[in-house]
Amino acid sequence: MRNILVTIMYDGKRYHGWQVQENADSVQEQFQKALSEVIGERPDIKGCSRTDAGVHANMYCISFHTGHSIPADRLPLALNRFLPADIAAIDARDVDDDFHARYSCLGKEYIYKINNARMRNPFLEGYALHYWQKIDESAMNEAAKHFLGRHDFTSFCTIDPHRKKGDFHRTVKNISVKRDGDIVTVTIEADGFLYNMVRIIVGTLLYTAQGKISPSDIPAIIDALDRSKAGPTAPPEGLYLNRVFY
Amino acid sequence: MRNILVTIMYDGKRYHGWQVQENADSVQEQFQKALSEVIGERPDIKGCSRTDAGVHANMYCISFHTGHSIPADRLPLALNRFLPADIAAIDARDVDDDFHARYSCLGKEYIYKINNARMRNPFLEGYALHYWQKIDESAMNEAAKHFLGRHDFTSFCTIDPHRKKGDFHRTVKNISVKRDGDIVTVTIEADGFLYNMVRIIVGTLLYTAQGKISPSDIPAIIDALDRSKAGPTAPPEGLYLNRVFY
Repeated sequence: MRNILVTIMYDGKRYHGWQVQENADSVQEQFQKALSEVIGERPDIKGCSRTDAGVHANMYCISFHTGHSIPADRLPLALNRFLPADIAAIDARDVDDDFHARYSCLGKEYIYKINNARMRNPFLEGYALHYWQKIDESAMNEAAKHFLGRHDFTSFCTIDPHRKKGDFHRTVKNISVKRDGDIVTVTIEADGFLYNMVRIIVGTLLYTAQGKISPSDIPAIIDALDRSKAGPTAPPEGLYLNRVFY
Repeated sequence: MRNILVTIMYDGKRYHGWQVQENADSVQEQFQKALSEVIGERPDIKGCSRTDAGVHANMYCISFHTGHSIPADRLPLALNRFLPADIAAIDARDVDDDFHARYSCLGKEYIYKINNARMRNPFLEGYALHYWQKIDESAMNEAAKHFLGRHDFTSFCTIDPHRKKGDFHRTVKNISVKRDGDIVTVTIEADGFLYNMVRIIVGTLLYTAQGKISPSDIPAIIDALDRSKAGPTAPPEGLYLNRVFY
């Protein structure tokens, strides 16, 4: 048996996230279908993370064991023959037997795109949050720096009823807010992310952009360990899993 | 009666072009519906050009006469309440009574986007031609310069059976081929365009990128006045009406 790591990109607009669900199309289901066409079997595949409906991925990693002999470098083009147009395999390689796309992950980087233009842009519908009020990205960037380092991110997590007693400490390694024309992009790298963590951080940063809170309020919101002290959960369409580190 | 000029942007992926057609959704039909919601009447609207199925517009102009008193600067947001997400009104202004979106047009600029990456990109599906062989954009740019100036573009036109005897002379004012990472963009400005002219020019430029013809062959292809001497018609998804000049 070999263990293979495949990297894909996907436009999540019409999917209910990565995870297979009943009565909803998922990226995992599409990938499994394409893989079974190529290798003639349906192995147990491991995705690097759950992603919500409407969230995108510039890089998403999947690992699985198989006895099939296809050379890894031929696998992306073979998969792309069967994947829908909004999902593309971009890389494949053989990895150690104990590699696991989720558990071997050392960190991830997400980006969140905001279209800060007065008028909506048809080409960004579903691909960026449209936020028409003028954003002060330097205030957002100043606020963002308070997230750096190891913190208990309970205030920035939608509680998952199935795992109330988890460890809510995560280490944010890089975070920045940059503008390029109308597009304001929030970039966050951490060793791991709690459920909705990026979207709640972005919603809170937008509060600073509107002057509802000051950048210097962030440490107290983190220390409160209380979801109700943070800003709203930003909508999914601006969120992209951008890089996965092993 | 007032004469109003509205500028829109649209993602043409799911439309059969601008023009109303039976049994197919068009941008014109969507715009007319939204306009009638806002002004309570259905005036005769004039679009700046026909566009083919799947072609996009960063700027598309429409004019119409109405007796309605809505201030022009409120019209874009009012229209956007009723337009689908893939069409957006971005400007509106009162114009002279004899202004006509098509006949008053002094020139247009189109861009054509080519994704020159080995792997396809889900986010560019329908928004750029995927051309995986490495493109020599400097050869394309050298070839492009031969189109500058006033020429009979019969070789670069799909003959419209309804108007075989038209004037096929057009003046190309600017043309360039530039690369930004994987994206190669062809930009063409002219006083007017024949049917499929940009797409046939792009198809011919791609012949030079592949070495099938030399940049110096372009003048003879123009002089031949023969569609069969030029390259193929590039597909619609890379084409954007980018600017309209009055």
